[in-house]
Amino acid sequence: MNYPSQLIEDAVSEISRLPGIGKKTALRLALHLLKREESQTRSLSEALVNMRTKTTYCVKCHNIADDQLCNICSNPRRDQTIICVVVDTRDVLAIESTNQYKGLYHVLGGIISPLEGIGPADLNIESLVARVENQDTDEPVKEVILALSPTMEGDTTAFYLQKKLKPSGVKMSTIARGVPIGGDLEYADEITLGRSIVSRVAYD
Amino acid sequence: MNYPSQLIEDAVSEISRLPGIGKKTALRLALHLLKREESQTRSLSEALVNMRTKTTYCVKCHNIADDQLCNICSNPRRDQTIICVVVDTRDVLAIESTNQYKGLYHVLGGIISPLEGIGPADLNIESLVARVENQDTDEPVKEVILALSPTMEGDTTAFYLQKKLKPSGVKMSTIARGVPIGGDLEYADEITLGRSIVSRVAYD
Repeated sequence: MNYPSQLIEDAVSEISRLPGIGKKTALRLALHLLKREESQTRSLSEALVNMRTKTTYCVKCHNIADDQLCNICSNPRRDQTIICVVVDTRDVLAIESTNQYKGLYHVLGGIISPLEGIGPADLNIESLVARVENQDTDEPVKEVILALSPTMEGDTTAFYLQKKLKPSGVKMSTIARGVPIGGDLEYADEITLGRSIVSRVAYD
Repeated sequence: MNYPSQLIEDAVSEISRLPGIGKKTALRLALHLLKREESQTRSLSEALVNMRTKTTYCVKCHNIADDQLCNICSNPRRDQTIICVVVDTRDVLAIESTNQYKGLYHVLGGIISPLEGIGPADLNIESLVARVENQDTDEPVKEVILALSPTMEGDTTAFYLQKKLKPSGVKMSTIARGVPIGGDLEYADEITLGRSIVSRVAYD
């Protein structure tokens, strides 16, 4: 395509490197920015560079953070006695958006996958064991919730973590698997439906 | 939602100001940039600011340009005797991507719309008339193609332009309207189909 301007071509090519954004969408976004105030483009590009260059990882839970500790670990109103183990920041945000969890997190940074050559040593597992075992605080960790995807890799990782944390005697649990709320039984796959019968919950 | 980092929250909020990008997509893009080299974020943000601050409008056709003249107007291999009138840069790029047109353009910058209070004086119409009338060049304009949308506003604008350019005696045409190539007759709307019968093309 003959772009009327090299600068637009450059911008479109950079925008379309983002996942899920093709040339057409990139062009639409570029033309949108051209129509708006210069300040919008400036604050967008500053926010991106600041995020990329100034964020770091929380020394406690390995989540993305502005400082040594992330906003969750440094929040005194969070329940310090419970840790939810997730794969990455996206999972933290997904759980945070439910407003159902007030404890802390531990971000593994990946999942055990022999096929991709990712073993336990590549993940933040040692620091999780240390958090659970070295407890000289007023509020020791009482429970570890595993919030991993119900896939082969997720189950393998969960199994490994259970074995590693068992000696500490901490209570362990996993998020419930079953038919999604609002989902029609008819459309649930057999494995999920089968598992939801096996793991049925008794009425109180 | 409780973001673990203020910097990410700022970036997500800036990205989600773009059209068609919600909070979830913005977060996905932000986390993607975090995983990549710092240089990618820097070149993206530089390309955006450069595009926004350094582009200008072509003095001849009002298209977006890096210099006084856009890449199309300054290209000596383009046919200088034919001008295609479009609403905005997006239309120029759409036509360029067909590789079927080798002439110049004229970008109106909008379309006559009494409902939105946009009249002929708000558009780049005087400069189009001047391009067609003041012809002291070796290659005078011989034809003006109107490539406007087949809507009420497009037809009104086309009608106005025909009236304004008639005294110059320039040949005028409009892009063909009809059943889209590859489209099934069954699915064409009645107005398009009706018009394609009225404007039928005789075989040579």
